This record gives sequence, structure tokens and C-alpha cells, in this order.
Amino acid sequence: MSALPQQSDNAPLLLRRDEGGVAYLTLNRPGQFNSLSRAMLEALIAEIDAIASDASVRVVVLAGEGKVFCAGHDLKEMRGNHTLQFQQDLFRLCGKFMVKLTELPQPVIARVHGIATAAGCQLVSMCDLAVAADVARFAVSGINVGLFCATPSVGLSRNMGRKEAFEMLVTGDFIDAAEAQRRGLVNRVVPLEELDAEIAKLATAICAKSPLAIRMGKQMFYRQLEMGMEGAYQMAAETMACNMMSEDAAEGIDAFIAKRKPEWRGR
Amino acid sequence: MSALPQQSDNAPLLLRRDEGGVAYLTLNRPGQFNSLSRAMLEALIAEIDAIASDASVRVVVLAGEGKVFCAGHDLKEMRGNHTLQFQQDLFRLCGKFMVKLTELPQPVIARVHGIATAAGCQLVSMCDLAVAADVARFAVSGINVGLFCATPSVGLSRNMGRKEAFEMLVTGDFIDAAEAQRRGLVNRVVPLEELDAEIAKLATAICAKSPLAIRMGKQMFYRQLEMGMEGAYQMAAETMACNMMSEDAAEGIDAFIAKRKPEWRGR
Amino acid sequence: MSALPQQSDNAPLLLRRDEGGVAYLTLNRPGQFNSLSRAMLEALIAEIDAIASDASVRVVVLAGEGKVFCAGHDLKEMRGNHTLQFQQDLFRLCGKFMVKLTELPQPVIARVHGIATAAGCQLVSMCDLAVAADVARFAVSGINVGLFCATPSVGLSRNMGRKEAFEMLVTGDFIDAAEAQRRGLVNRVVPLEELDAEIAKLATAICAKSPLAIRMGKQMFYRQLEMGMEGAYQMAAETMACNMMSEDAAEGIDAFIAKRKPEWRGR
Repeated sequence: MSALPQQSDNAPLLLRRDEGGVAYLTLNRPGQFNSLSRAMLEALIAEIDAIASDASVRVVVLAGEGKVFCAGHDLKEMRGNHTLQFQQDLFRLCGKFMVKLTELPQPVIARVHGIATAAGCQLVSMCDLAVAADVARFAVSGINVGLFCATPSVGLSRNMGRKEAFEMLVTGDFIDAAEAQRRGLVNRVVPLEELDAEIAKLATAICAKSPLAIRMGKQMFYRQLEMGMEGAYQMAAETMACNMMSEDAAEGIDAFIAKRKPEWRGR
Repeated sequence: MSALPQQSDNAPLLLRRDEGGVAYLTLNRPGQFNSLSRAMLEALIAEIDAIASDASVRVVVLAGEGKVFCAGHDLKEMRGNHTLQFQQDLFRLCGKFMVKLTELPQPVIARVHGIATAAGCQLVSMCDLAVAADVARFAVSGINVGLFCATPSVGLSRNMGRKEAFEMLVTGDFIDAAEAQRRGLVNRVVPLEELDAEIAKLATAICAKSPLAIRMGKQMFYRQLEMGMEGAYQMAAETMACNMMSEDAAEGIDAFIAKRKPEWRGR
Repeated sequence: MSALPQQSDNAPLLLRRDEGGVAYLTLNRPGQFNSLSRAMLEALIAEIDAIASDASVRVVVLAGEGKVFCAGHDLKEMRGNHTLQFQQDLFRLCGKFMVKLTELPQPVIARVHGIATAAGCQLVSMCDLAVAADVARFAVSGINVGLFCATPSVGLSRNMGRKEAFEMLVTGDFIDAAEAQRRGLVNRVVPLEELDAEIAKLATAICAKSPLAIRMGKQMFYRQLEMGMEGAYQMAAETMACNMMSEDAAEGIDAFIAKRKPEWRGR
């Protein structure tokens, strides 16, 4: 565990543990339901930036300490800094962090063991992958306090159908983990006691691939999503041709033809 | 019930009843399966325009009189006015109305009690939310009369997967209510006898929220859907900061912290 | 069966059989799992171009000979021509063919009787419709040989949710036919012994429609998908007005009103 920005009680806001190529980042404000205060967002951005250039990290797992995964922004902090400037800075910082998750070379898996609401639900939607415990529940509940979950709607409506997202946004109602999976917000749902094993299985599978291919692929994936079909194919064809000229693809195909295990060099 | 544009038999094309913040609009051409004639589209646009500036209306419910929800355009009228100009005017008017539904500040719920075909299915797809009876069925059946449901395809393909939409468009086949829900065309499916209660429950839930937050949120929602991720986050962040500076958000958060019920002022 | 580009053993790469308005194209390299070599892509493009101007063809069914539907590109050919130029030409050719499927006036149905991997899975995703046997399985498995399935991701992420697509791309894991249907990658799943009957049923249904309406509709469908809502409605309204002025729409509506069967003239 590295020491990261401190809370008043000196506990770090964010915990990081690296093991077997996986960086486990844990939101560590359980008393505040891991809310995304300004300091928490800054700590997350700093850690994500550090991981981006850390070749030893192949996968990031994002988790929450305590009973709740993440309950969104820190409402007390927001009310205590009641200027337009503070709110703009906060939501821009939040958006910047969320986009960074998609720009990070390594895949990010959300580990959702409990409730994910408002910007906490947004966080799940913006991770590349998400594995949830069957007891997890999801809502964009800002509307209950007079605050439409605008920034969460960006990720939510890019994970599920527009009518499904709109209903959640105007009612603030919860959906359970099975429904979240059916809609595309999470990839896998398992009993809580199997959550870590399932995430380890997924992370291990990704760690066994060429880091170069994963990095090139993830970057291309989100860019092509925003393009028309022809532009998307042009960019994807260039990416794939470049990937094919890498040592890892040569090794991978040769190993496949020779029926042996490949040895990646990451180039 | 207000008196709206008349049919030849003097029955209004469109019925409106307001109750508890909900405007119930009912297509009233049951003998013609509530078809979207030019006059019907004009009546709908006039009513939607009036509701847009009516602060007493918080939610709109769109329903159909008789056995059918809506069977699309009026084929006899279309064949009786066989000029390109008439057809262009008709489909432009139809598109204008459909887009207006998404621009209306208040959420619109489709109440689908029976068959919704062609532009009737489009109408369901373009409402923000839809609740269907289990006996409701959906098709884009223009192809059966040599007329590909082009304008309906716009809404349909933004509610469900492209292969699912394409199959409906080239076969004209019906899907049932459960399948429509699975695909994202409707939010909820209930037995016919519970349809009004379910819609009242949904409408009441929305009426309990801040009208300001709903209005800002709905407008932002459809605009961000058409933007790239970065642009979407920029706009959403500005919207959320503005929303946060409203009296309703201050009241909502203070009430939440004090564990009391908020009192919205709509500003 | 027409004689098409030859393999070294003189068997044609691609088989074509026309029957009742349906062109059955069959990938015919079963020994190489119907891999999309450069010659195979060129044969497919030539055949698709020929069909585009062949008014006798109303529907295309794309199938694979042998146990496998299609296992993607020809890895041996790719490794045997290890220049950036070859790879770029190959993936551009592949993208060109895939986009041509959506531009072809006639609907294309994938007949997936077995495994579809990498560019074979892409092929399914880019067909307008797909019917699979319950034993069919789908994966984008390039990542297992160090080659991220970039071009396949374009079609895949336009058929299913982004998290669902991303998981397949970084794990290389298979999904079965039922899951492929749930996600929107295939339209229908039937037991293998009913596959041809189900495809015949779907193809026959499409052949019974106006070819003009299908052609105008398919072209409009993919173009509107890439537009904002207002632009999409404008284009769709023009398309529908033009379609309405055709002889087929007049005949179709008159036949519908007179309760008789329409006779299409394709104009």
C-alpha cells in the first residue's frame, strides 16, 4: 500500500496494492461512502497518470472500501463551497478523470461489491469492464436531491439503451446487478464471496495477452466508437497493420502455428 | 377535456385531460386506428407547443382511444393526395413532431395498450419512456404495402440494436411487448388492467422531482447523445454546475442532509 | 454453381447458387476454415459487385463450407508476406468488402452453422441479418496471437454494448449462439437441422416485398444511423416521400385497401 493524499484522520484517500501485474486501487473513505470529493478525484487522476507510464501494470481493478462501492460526489463539500466556479471545477475535474479511464493504456475493471450511485454509477459505466456482486445495486439518484445526474448520464447512456437510462435518470430508482448485466452496465455478476476470484480470473486472462496489442487495441476501440463506419474501418485497418508488424504478433502467430505458448515482449 | 381540431363527425382529433400535473393526450380517431393524418399531426404539434410553456404540466402521457394505440399514417389520405409535395410536407411534419417530443421540457410517456405499427411504432420509440400492456404488439409494417418505414427507422434504430431493427423493417413482422421491453423499445410491461396504475406510479414519481432539474436534464440528455465523449462531458459538466447553483438543488441537498422532505420551487 | 477464382487444387474459393431470387454464396476453403485470404476477399468483392447490379437477386445468403463458418484472416499468408504494405492492403481490402455489404442494395443474411472467429465474427456483424445454429460460437480471438481484432471491433461494437464487445476483444473468449442473439449479433437461433428452413423462411419473406422499397430503405438505414436525429429525419422524410411516389407504393396501398395481394414492378 502506498501512502496517498491524506484525509483529516491521516488515512489515505486511495489505497494501491500491486500484485501479479494488477494494480488494485481502492477508494478509502468508507465513512463517507467513498464519495468523489475534489481531493479524491485529484488522487485518482494522479494515480491513473502514474499507472499510464508504468509498464509493470497490465490491468487496473477499481474497488471501494466498506459497505458501499461509491455514492457519488461529496454533497456536503458541494454545499459548503456554493460558488459556480467551484461546481464547474468539480464537474470538469470529474469528467476529465472519467475520460482518462478510457485513455489509460491498461484495461480498468470496476469491482462493484455494493451500492453504486450517481457519480459512483458513472464510475462503473466508464470503466472498460465491470464485475459485480449479486448484492450490488445501481442508481443515478441525484434527481432525488434536485440535481439531475448530467455527467453520469454520459457514461450511462453509452452503456445501455436510451429509454432504460432515461428512466433511471428521472426516477432515481435502483436496478439490481442482474438487470445491470442485462443492460450492459456490468459484464459479470457473481455471489459476493466469489467476487475477488472472478475478478482475478478476468485480470489474469488479460495479463496473459500481449501488452502491446491490448494497448493499441484499447486506444483504437474508443476512438472508432465515435467515428462513422468508413472512418472507423480506415483507422482500424491502419492499427491492425501496425499491430501485425510487431514482434508480439509475429511471435503469437508463430507460436499458434507451432502449437506452443507465445512469449510476449511487449513490442 | 379541451375542444381540439375537429373530425368531420365533430369529435375532437385529440383529447386532453390534466390531472395532478399530468397532461393525458389521447389520439381520438379510433375508427381510423388513430392514424397520424396531417390534421392529427398538426393537432399534436399545437398541443405539445402549448404544453411546453405550461408550468402546471410536469409529465405528458400519450395514449390512443379504441382497440389500437396507433396504426401509423393515414394511407387513404396519402393516396388521395398523390403529389410529391404533399408527401414531403407530411413526412417533414411528422419528423418535426417527433423531434419536438424530445425537445419538450416535460418527459413524455407512451401508454401502449394495443397495436403500434409504422409511424405508431415510431411514436413509441420517440417518447422518452413507454409503458405497454402485455397484449401490445409492435411492427414497422410499411414494407408490406411497398413503403419502407424510413422515418420510423430513425427512432427504432435509436432504441434497439441495428440487426433487430433491420429485421423488423424488412419483414414487417410483429414483436410482442416482452420482446419490445427486452430490446429497449418500452420500459415496463404490465397486464392491461394494471396499465393505468403503472403509468400513474411512474408519472407520480417524476412529478415528485424538481421540475427545473428534470427540464435541464432532459434537454442535456438528448444533446449529449449526439456528441463525442469529450464534448458530451463538457456540456454535461456545465449543465450540472448550473443545476447545482439552483435553489432546488440547495433545498434538495439541505433536506437530504437534514433527513426531511424537500420543497421544490422550480428555480 | 459458377466457376470462381481457383484454389491450387482447382476448387473454386467461392460457390454461388441462385434459387428463387436468393443468391447463396458459400466460402469454399473448408481445409483452411474458410479463412479470408486476399484471394478470398477479392472473390467476395467481385461477386458482391456483380450481385449489386443483378435485379434477379433479391436476397444474399452468406455461408461457409465444412465444419467452421469462418475463422478470420489467413495467418500463414499474413506471416508469409511480412511487409507493412501487404498488411495495410489486406486490412483495407477487408474493410472495403465489409462496408460493401452494407452498401449492397439487397439484404445479406449470414448463415452461421459453426464457429465464427476474428474476421469471421466481423463478417457476421456486418451482414444485415444473421441466423445461427444453436451450436454456433463466436469470438474475436486475435488477441490470443498478439493481434487485437481492430477491424472486427468496428462491426462488433455496432452490434452489441461496448462493455460486452470490449470483454470479447481483450479475453478472446467465445460466446454461444443464444448469448450472441441476446446481445444483437444474430437475429435468430435454431437447431442446426432447421437452419436452412429458417433462412429460407426469412429470405422468402423479404423476397415477397417490393425490391424498390427494400433497396431505398437499406441505403437510407445505414446512412441515418451515422447522423444526428434532425439530419436523420430530414433524409428519412425525403426517402419516404420518394418511395411513396413509386408505382410499388401506389400498388401496395391500393392492394391493401382492396384486400388483395400486391404485384410489385420494382419501380
